[in-house]
Amino acid sequence: MPARLLVVVKSGGAAAMPEWRAAFAHALPEAEVRMWGDPEIVPAAVTHALVWEPEAGALARFPNLRLVISTGAGVDHVLADPDYPRHVPLARMILPETRDGMAEYVGMAALMLMRDMRTIARQQAEHHWRIPPEMPLARRTRVGVMGLGALGLHAARYLATLGFQTSGWSRSAKTIEGVTTYHGMGQLPGFLAQCDIVVNLLPQTADTVGLPDRARLSLLPRGASLLNAGRAAHVVTADLLALLDEGHLHTAMLDVFDIEPLPQDSVLWSHPSVVVTPHCASTPSRTDRAHRAAALIRLAETGAPIPDLYEAARGY
Amino acid sequence: MPARLLVVVKSGGAAAMPEWRAAFAHALPEAEVRMWGDPEIVPAAVTHALVWEPEAGALARFPNLRLVISTGAGVDHVLADPDYPRHVPLARMILPETRDGMAEYVGMAALMLMRDMRTIARQQAEHHWRIPPEMPLARRTRVGVMGLGALGLHAARYLATLGFQTSGWSRSAKTIEGVTTYHGMGQLPGFLAQCDIVVNLLPQTADTVGLPDRARLSLLPRGASLLNAGRAAHVVTADLLALLDEGHLHTAMLDVFDIEPLPQDSVLWSHPSVVVTPHCASTPSRTDRAHRAAALIRLAETGAPIPDLYEAARGY
Ligand SMILES: NC(=O)c1ccc[n+]([C@@H]2O[C@H](COP(=O)([O-])OP(=O)(O)OC[C@H]3O[C@@H](n4cnc5c(N)ncnc54)[C@H](OP(=O)(O)O)[C@@H]3O)[C@@H](O)[C@H]2O)c1
Ligand SMILES: NC(=O)c1ccc[n+]([C@@H]2O[C@H](COP(=O)([O-])OP(=O)(O)OC[C@H]3O[C@@H](n4cnc5c(N)ncnc54)[C@H](OP(=O)(O)O)[C@@H]3O)[C@@H](O)[C@H]2O)c1
Repeated sequence: MPARLLVVVKSGGAAAMPEWRAAFAHALPEAEVRMWGDPEIVPAAVTHALVWEPEAGALARFPNLRLVISTGAGVDHVLADPDYPRHVPLARMILPETRDGMAEYVGMAALMLMRDMRTIARQQAEHHWRIPPEMPLARRTRVGVMGLGALGLHAARYLATLGFQTSGWSRSAKTIEGVTTYHGMGQLPGFLAQCDIVVNLLPQTADTVGLPDRARLSLLPRGASLLNAGRAAHVVTADLLALLDEGHLHTAMLDVFDIEPLPQDSVLWSHPSVVVTPHCASTPSRTDRAHRAAALIRLAETGAPIPDLYEAARGY
Repeated sequence: MPARLLVVVKSGGAAAMPEWRAAFAHALPEAEVRMWGDPEIVPAAVTHALVWEPEAGALARFPNLRLVISTGAGVDHVLADPDYPRHVPLARMILPETRDGMAEYVGMAALMLMRDMRTIARQQAEHHWRIPPEMPLARRTRVGVMGLGALGLHAARYLATLGFQTSGWSRSAKTIEGVTTYHGMGQLPGFLAQCDIVVNLLPQTADTVGLPDRARLSLLPRGASLLNAGRAAHVVTADLLALLDEGHLHTAMLDVFDIEPLPQDSVLWSHPSVVVTPHCASTPSRTDRAHRAAALIRLAETGAPIPDLYEAARGY
């Protein structure tokens, strides 16, 4: 391996550093690991950056950066920096744990939405016993996944295994066993019209921001529910709330928010048709992610192809 | 077919009769269908009874009864009648919909318990954002099913498909692909000791009432959760609440109760560690159940073997 490896880490703050350090000491012992902002860092010595929401301009200050790794699956938080050094490869962090965690979260949410567990929870709070008039079954419930990438594809397969009538929508055409596929803007209305539950797992790009807006969400059948585990910027919150209030949509389960932590005074916390989870759909442990980052760094250092690289041409 | 068929129905009261009647008119047009307690019923003319919680002594008043069918999977509510006519075959109502509905409820509940959705819901009510420290995964979570009968076996298979480390416990030894099996009282402690989540799907019999009591629930690992979708009489409620209050158990999700509807003043409604669902785990529609009852009646009339019959010798 060439020269010295210096990895700077920005994710979880000082509290998280011992865990990152311990895992790297094990998985990449030859590397020096420094916390982002450490005054002793010599910028020219930094070879790798493992980051979540780096400040604008910060990555550009490391002239010898060889690889940037996101601590999550998305890279929108890096691309938000206009000075991000575009010549440096940027890797998304996708572990088997990321895929499985997301699939299990989506499967749980789809079953909860199908069985209207939001209403059942409210009735518990009111000490109100009411047996639902009809028992819904997965095989009679249509769940559609927007975005069939690293996470969406696996989630769609998991939903099919659970017994749901599963469909998916992506940019390019796909064939997936047990999943009805749609693609492109032309097929979006037809896709939405057949979703009792729609799951957003698109990446955040110029083309996908605001995609599920009022007009498109109105194409969902009356009484449909939405799960957003992608990015908050995808769904237009005001449009979503209007459709919930009008009764066109039944429930929104949201894991991602424009501002996180979700501010105390957000209407989403107490809206009766909204279920909030704290961006916990899929975050593997720091130890698992450090091991994955170490593996990506080793691949990069030996010149091997790096999986899950961001591709500027398509925007994700 | 011999003679005339007269089916009396006791399930859902007068409000449910139009649905029962319409479905029987379609599935068993040759039968006369009467509501339980109808003064015009001539007891000697009754050939079949489709019942839920018949009053003690009532079934014994029909001397020519040829088959009793429970409107649910369990028959404990019929056997509670000491004068139940023991010479008449008693059929449990098990449809594909019963199995699938229960499996999906159990799968949903296991994912919710694994991800501590009870705490996440409380935090939503408090507008409190807190990302769980570690993302749990099904493959690292051990779920055990007590009772591997019509519903337990299917639920265990579904849990294995979802990715859980699945085990099951029954009276006799069994081999089930993807499920670690235990059997008999001798192996109960070993079974319980390895359950992060235990699911009760035993039938209610003299041997199973009160089985998960304080001593046995204490054998679960600290922090384990319990799902009861079998019968309330299985779990000793006071023992369960004590173990929740002491922190030995984390959450109890309960679908069945000693008195249903659960009384307004029950402590279970508002106990912070209890999730209440209103006996909705698995109840197929009346139409589907009437069709199944019609099919069982046809089998009985032609002398063919009837599936899912209660066996007095084993008590379920
Ligand atoms: N909530 C959480 O805990 C959590 C955790 C991890 C990730 N996430 C989020 O989950 C989302 C999915 O992540 P991922 O890694 O699966 O993303 P990804 O692999 O980049 O997803 C790409 C998928 O989206 C499709 N797509 C992209 N642009 C499109 C467009 N304009 N129209 C139609 N389809 C389009 C792609 O189509 P093609 O197949 O045709 O290319 C592909 O199927 C991201 O938003 C990520 O940030 C959330
Ligand atoms: N919550 C709801 O909505 C709902 C809906 C339907 C049913 N249920 C309830 O769900 C439960 C399961 O129904 P099911 O139809 O699956 O019952 P089942 O077929 O009668 O269950 C029999 C299973 O329990 C085992 N078992 C019986 N006695 C045992 C003992 N003493 N020790 C160990 N194992 C014993 C049997 O062992 P072997 O295999 O060795 O015989 C068998 O595996 C019942 O309580 C039913 O009332 C609830």
